Amino acid sequence: MDKGKFRHMIQVRVRSSEIDWQGIVHNAQHLVYCEDGRFTYFGDRGILLDLNAKEHPEKVVIARNEIDYVSPARFGDVLKVYTRISFIRNSSFAFESIIEESSSGRRIAENVSIHVYLDTRTGEPKTIPESFRKKVLEYEGENVVIAWPTYLA
Amino acid sequence: MDKGKFRHMIQVRVRSSEIDWQGIVHNAQHLVYCEDGRFTYFGDRGILLDLNAKEHPEKVVIARNEIDYVSPARFGDVLKVYTRISFIRNSSFAFESIIEESSSGRRIAENVSIHVYLDTRTGEPKTIPESFRKKVLEYEGENVVIAWPTYLA
Amino acid sequence: MDKGKFRHMIQVRVRSSEIDWQGIVHNAQHLVYCEDGRFTYFGDRGILLDLNAKEHPEKVVIARNEIDYVSPARFGDVLKVYTRISFIRNSSFAFESIIEESSSGRRIAENVSIHVYLDTRTGEPKTIPESFRKKVLEYEGENVVIAWPTYLA
Amino acid sequence: MDKGKFRHMIQVRVRSSEIDWQGIVHNAQHLVYCEDGRFTYFGDRGILLDLNAKEHPEKVVIARNEIDYVSPARFGDVLKVYTRISFIRNSSFAFESIIEESSSGRRIAENVSIHVYLDTRTGEPKTIPESFRKKVLEYEGENVVIAWPTYLA
Repeated sequence: MDKGKFRHMIQVRVRSSEIDWQGIVHNAQHLVYCEDGRFTYFGDRGILLDLNAKEHPEKVVIARNEIDYVSPARFGDVLKVYTRISFIRNSSFAFESIIEESSSGRRIAENVSIHVYLDTRTGEPKTIPESFRKKVLEYEGENVVIAWPTYLA
Repeated sequence: MDKGKFRHMIQVRVRSSEIDWQGIVHNAQHLVYCEDGRFTYFGDRGILLDLNAKEHPEKVVIARNEIDYVSPARFGDVLKVYTRISFIRNSSFAFESIIEESSSGRRIAENVSIHVYLDTRTGEPKTIPESFRKKVLEYEGENVVIAWPTYLA
Repeated sequence: MDKGKFRHMIQVRVRSSEIDWQGIVHNAQHLVYCEDGRFTYFGDRGILLDLNAKEHPEKVVIARNEIDYVSPARFGDVLKVYTRISFIRNSSFAFESIIEESSSGRRIAENVSIHVYLDTRTGEPKTIPESFRKKVLEYEGENVVIAWPTYLA
Repeated sequence: MDKGKFRHMIQVRVRSSEIDWQGIVHNAQHLVYCEDGRFTYFGDRGILLDLNAKEHPEKVVIARNEIDYVSPARFGDVLKVYTRISFIRNSSFAFESIIEESSSGRRIAENVSIHVYLDTRTGEPKTIPESFRKKVLEYEGENVVIAWPTYLA
């Protein structure tokens, strides 16, 4: 992944409880760091904040995670988690994340996650609202690929 | 704790992800095992099953945990988690748990947890319903101490 | 994934602590279930048991995880986790996992993970030992693709 | 607990993955926050840093945790975790922790944990080294109760 495309970053410090018996961060923990980046991204952009309220007619679910473990993270490491939305389709969108060790810039992992907008009542995919596309487009600029719904074409 | 007072037991197998950098089960994980025992206890007794539904007028929260770590648990250990309700007061009740390694009977940990019945709307403690006391009393018999609400005395 | 190719299965019961604020199993937890299946697979085959001992000259690390979330798992669900080794290369091998809800057979998730054999001292990839290939081949039969090291060809 | 006695503090931000199905931080997670405070305390004081190295003749284990849940923490809350060593005996010592919501000062939880110094080879309790007492005494001053080993008396 090209770090130059990422504008959003959070820092996380590796806790002792996140270290496994091999002495490194457990492989499932990286997904937690990346999710933390995504939630913070949404919060910082002011989008999706009320989406998952119980009575909301829409929700977002995760459909897929891909993660490459490049090098191990250890206790006390301060990690930078870079987050961007790489594409938006009709009812789905993708996040990319890069995890780096902050002092050396050593790459720890790369993650791609696919998310789907659902109608809460029917459970069926639903067109992502205009406001979501707009806010992401404003922030990500030309780095996000937006495939507009075909019925709008 | 006297194991003779416990009637309810579940078995859990220690996962590799639950092992910390010292090569033993992480100290917060024991609380997860004990909670697993409590939820199974409730399920098996047919109580509190709908209690935490969103629209329910009551909920149960945990107010305190005490845990003594007697000996370490390791990857692959099959643990027996014994669970009992030791007392019920007006709006609170206590669980006790014993964790043992199943093949040797070696004691791993002992836990006491205190739980409080709340009115969901006011957030104030609420008298535990009669049906709850009855079901626990039927199951635990003389081993549970039930302090009936004083206003009933 | 074709379930007919899987011979190994474990059962896991979803704990309350594994449920997230959306009321479903958290997306990182699925990786824990699949890892649990892999470790049990190794234990049942009698391979790699001593591999990760501190003084061992070899270790296995995880290089990649891909997971598709097919449908949500909920508290109390009993899950079947099917595990197989799908290929072995010179110094890497792949696991596939299917997670199903046990009573309905509903598919919960599918996971592919890539693992690499390393020389502990140099940190460099190392040819997977003959004994490993043999044990997996005996168990998986024609369903595992074994690409023998090219220098042996 | 009297916050005036605490000199050490870390901040943690509640992650979405730490929220349970009730919409609040899971009860086992508080122990993770407090442990994070303790490890940071040790790191900041320059003590015990090498203690748990594999070949070290001593190790520290946790013997007991007591935690009172005062009020719930929620997603996005920034928490202050205050940490102090309250007493040191011959081979054991105690930490106290207070967790507060940072903006309001609302108390979330209070934790006491007891730790024991062990001889790695025999597994028996061992007198805590002079250097440990000294560094803690220098930092905590009169707020730490140090019961010197009786054989020194």
